Amino acid sequence: MDMQEIVKPASVVDEGICRGNIRRMLAKAQQNGCRLRPHFKTHQSLSVGRWFREAGVRKIAVSSLAMAQYFAADGWDDILVAFPVNLREIGLLNALASKIKLGVLLADAQVWPVLQEQLIYPVDIYLKIDVGTHRTGFNPDAVDEIRQLAIQLGSDERVQLKGLVAHAGHTYQAADAAQIAEITACGLRILEGIRTALSGEFSTLILSWGDTPGCSLLSEFQGFDELRPGNFVFYDLMQIQLGACSAADVGYVAALPVVARHPDRMEVVLYGGAVHLSKESLNIPGAGQVYGQVVLLEPGGWQFPETAIYLSRLSQEHGIFRCPETFWDYFKPGRLAGVVPVHSCLTADLLRDVYDTNGLKLA
Amino acid sequence: MDMQEIVKPASVVDEGICRGNIRRMLAKAQQNGCRLRPHFKTHQSLSVGRWFREAGVRKIAVSSLAMAQYFAADGWDDILVAFPVNLREIGLLNALASKIKLGVLLADAQVWPVLQEQLIYPVDIYLKIDVGTHRTGFNPDAVDEIRQLAIQLGSDERVQLKGLVAHAGHTYQAADAAQIAEITACGLRILEGIRTALSGEFSTLILSWGDTPGCSLLSEFQGFDELRPGNFVFYDLMQIQLGACSAADVGYVAALPVVARHPDRMEVVLYGGAVHLSKESLNIPGAGQVYGQVVLLEPGGWQFPETAIYLSRLSQEHGIFRCPETFWDYFKPGRLAGVVPVHSCLTADLLRDVYDTNGLKLA
Repeated sequence: MDMQEIVKPASVVDEGICRGNIRRMLAKAQQNGCRLRPHFKTHQSLSVGRWFREAGVRKIAVSSLAMAQYFAADGWDDILVAFPVNLREIGLLNALASKIKLGVLLADAQVWPVLQEQLIYPVDIYLKIDVGTHRTGFNPDAVDEIRQLAIQLGSDERVQLKGLVAHAGHTYQAADAAQIAEITACGLRILEGIRTALSGEFSTLILSWGDTPGCSLLSEFQGFDELRPGNFVFYDLMQIQLGACSAADVGYVAALPVVARHPDRMEVVLYGGAVHLSKESLNIPGAGQVYGQVVLLEPGGWQFPETAIYLSRLSQEHGIFRCPETFWDYFKPGRLAGVVPVHSCLTADLLRDVYDTNGLKLA
Repeated sequence: MDMQEIVKPASVVDEGICRGNIRRMLAKAQQNGCRLRPHFKTHQSLSVGRWFREAGVRKIAVSSLAMAQYFAADGWDDILVAFPVNLREIGLLNALASKIKLGVLLADAQVWPVLQEQLIYPVDIYLKIDVGTHRTGFNPDAVDEIRQLAIQLGSDERVQLKGLVAHAGHTYQAADAAQIAEITACGLRILEGIRTALSGEFSTLILSWGDTPGCSLLSEFQGFDELRPGNFVFYDLMQIQLGACSAADVGYVAALPVVARHPDRMEVVLYGGAVHLSKESLNIPGAGQVYGQVVLLEPGGWQFPETAIYLSRLSQEHGIFRCPETFWDYFKPGRLAGVVPVHSCLTADLLRDVYDTNGLKLA
């Protein structure tokens, strides 16, 4: 049995591809005079984190204090929790701030007075600015409110206001690279406007920007100080569809055991459903709603079959695809199928056992 | 701070409601002369499992060998893994079979010869029959194939063919209780037909049936020997919409901290996204696509606001709802919001820290 250590749904990463993705993004950041602060929520793997470190990365972003704790234990000591401060976790926040350079995000001015009361150790503060996604962050038109908060922050010596953070989540809905370029240019203008408004009190605020489609498709980021994409280390089916990467750039698949076949409808049933891949789906022209793309997973790597095979049905634990006759004998029960997920961040979050392409376990 | 042990997204269960759901389903099974073998994938909690045990339940179903191992360690010794045998996990299968009465599912005849070669300890075998969901299982028209497999199984003294298992997943798409009753009656006829065809060799095969909408909405299950619903212990928004339960029967909410508010659009941002609730959504007439229903979570339990509040947007970690003015001051940052998920099985799988309604941790 190939890759025999993998006995149930798991993550498989291709080190060469991931390192290539890291190298390219790092080069792009450097060419633009930006620091790369990759978002580690995508992989949540110590091994993948170390590939970043070996490439020269020292500062990272995560999406929870628990994730910050996990990477801090592996030597990362400059971590931005790129999610609005959760006041209920003040205990862990203080514990981390006592050990590492911890950055936290404010997206609501009313959070600061409560945080201020309970904060013990120094932290860096970043303000989340809403550049059009309207998910969270300060309304950039409310400059007075932002300035007032900044002044309050400036008067507390435990904290340092470091910068302005934006996430252009609406690039995921953009029609093409030109539209993404427009969103990015507009975001930069918004952030620069706020920085200018605060320049009397704060002269060194950095502008931090990041989303994988934008950071992959564009090459100009002059004006920004920091880029924070995360997904690019793995990419996925959604990024292929957006044109942010090619199939050859995908560094991650879910490894899912074949458990049954139904020849009367040429269907293969995988041990791999919503609790393994997530329920994220995508409309592929000609294929309809799909939950992932099936690849041939072999020791050493995976290959895309010439004719695309998509996971077309998904329940809690079952994933189902219609199998071309050519591959019927290949996908027999007991074999592992590779599946490029729609959204690798969600799948990697669910499949925390990570293997390399030779089936050896990674940290 | 209320329920201060809950600092990040977590599961909260109402013991009284869950015990009531267990009692009612158990009474219904007994009235029909059926055994209840509840599916424990819904809760994956040792504490909730013990409530079942205290009500008299001794046999359970799970969806993975890992889950079987987890519950076996808490004293459960009659467990059916109600998912097609995963040949790659033969090691764990044998380890469990050496300790407990383990039931496994066959859904593909070609799996048996491989399993037979590697099996060491006795197991009970159940055949999965496709009663119309077309997800997996034997085609009931292929009686010869089923009979041939059954005879092979009969000749191996390590295994005992115990019964026929069906899951009418298509009840989730049924229009009303009458249609579900039809699906159930039709499923029973199919299973009885196969049992009759095998009666020469096997005289005691049981018929095992189960899905929460059917088991909740119908009262007649004469003819079946075993019912295997799972979701009913918690229920959720989908089951309310299907009419399988009322809001008062819901025994589970996700507890999600409020992290920001945006008064210009009256939106509340929760620490709770796709990695906490799953991406399962539902179309609610008048409200559109929703990801959960917001409730007022207080020590002792939760309440549904008079006017329904739905989670209308969800990204990887953020959940967003539009807040009525009446509750604006209530949902301030730092407070926990309760969210009835669309599909409680998926949410409970993601939020493995489980608390009671007083905020005390459960096993």
